[in-house]
Amino acid sequence: MIRFIPSTSSRILEEAYGKGARECFSEDRTLKLVFSKKKAFDLVELQQLLESVGWSRRPIRKVRRALDNSLLTIGLWRDDPRFPRLIGFGRCTGDGVLEATVWDVAVSPLYQGSGLGRQLMLYILASLREEGIKRVTLFADPGVVSFYENQGWILEPKGKKCAFWYSN
Amino acid sequence: MIRFIPSTSSRILEEAYGKGARECFSEDRTLKLVFSKKKAFDLVELQQLLESVGWSRRPIRKVRRALDNSLLTIGLWRDDPRFPRLIGFGRCTGDGVLEATVWDVAVSPLYQGSGLGRQLMLYILASLREEGIKRVTLFADPGVVSFYENQGWILEPKGKKCAFWYSN
Repeated sequence: MIRFIPSTSSRILEEAYGKGARECFSEDRTLKLVFSKKKAFDLVELQQLLESVGWSRRPIRKVRRALDNSLLTIGLWRDDPRFPRLIGFGRCTGDGVLEATVWDVAVSPLYQGSGLGRQLMLYILASLREEGIKRVTLFADPGVVSFYENQGWILEPKGKKCAFWYSN
Repeated sequence: MIRFIPSTSSRILEEAYGKGARECFSEDRTLKLVFSKKKAFDLVELQQLLESVGWSRRPIRKVRRALDNSLLTIGLWRDDPRFPRLIGFGRCTGDGVLEATVWDVAVSPLYQGSGLGRQLMLYILASLREEGIKRVTLFADPGVVSFYENQGWILEPKGKKCAFWYSN
């Protein structure tokens, strides 16, 4: 049996960012960017990232529980030996077998426009595929519908519509 | 402090169907129907129910894991002291805090047309509300869009579209 042995660089990456961490391609060679499924978030930093893309503030304790109960939480980090910065995020809920739903995909406005969102989605989908999940769902805001379509997502398959229910 | 003491009948219901079980109104007074969040499913019976509403067969071991990992699984049972029958089903995935998504809502064709689906949805939403969840989502097939709209679900709020990704 051939066992996969990570290269030195990916072992160093995994030491700092946890199992399955992977470098993200950056046009700016002076930046090292890393995807991680394991590195813990500073919830204030996460809140700032989500607010920077226009989302409303949510209570920190609720966000903490929501992350703990997520199937997958992905950070995109600007590497730094002392202060890595969170510049992208996405998470999934689901049963880990039949259904996975993507929420809260965000890339900091300072880093948008160079394909990081696309790489982030590829990393999320690859991570779910490793778990054996065959179908992934999400709710796309109007402004990002083409972003997802361009990456092979099917809009409203078989005429499905999303429906939301709000508690009074 | 006043403590809620269940009536005798709801205590008997909870003994057989678990905490939070509730009777479902039935037009046919000879039928006693019960919602349960706790009563275990016979997965072959569940499969038969889902197939009876036109869904494709899924491997039993995957269904078992998916149910185990669900936030909530609801059965609608035709009560019988010896052989209660599963006549309705629904489940949710989510983080239990910010997001909950409803899947696999089904009522046996033999029992459709008398408002059981509507009561099932009310029971699901009441159960989620008890957990403090303020927003619930689902993907509606074209044939049931009006079913959900009539119950106060908002279709495609703020122009949101559902997107699906399928693994090759």
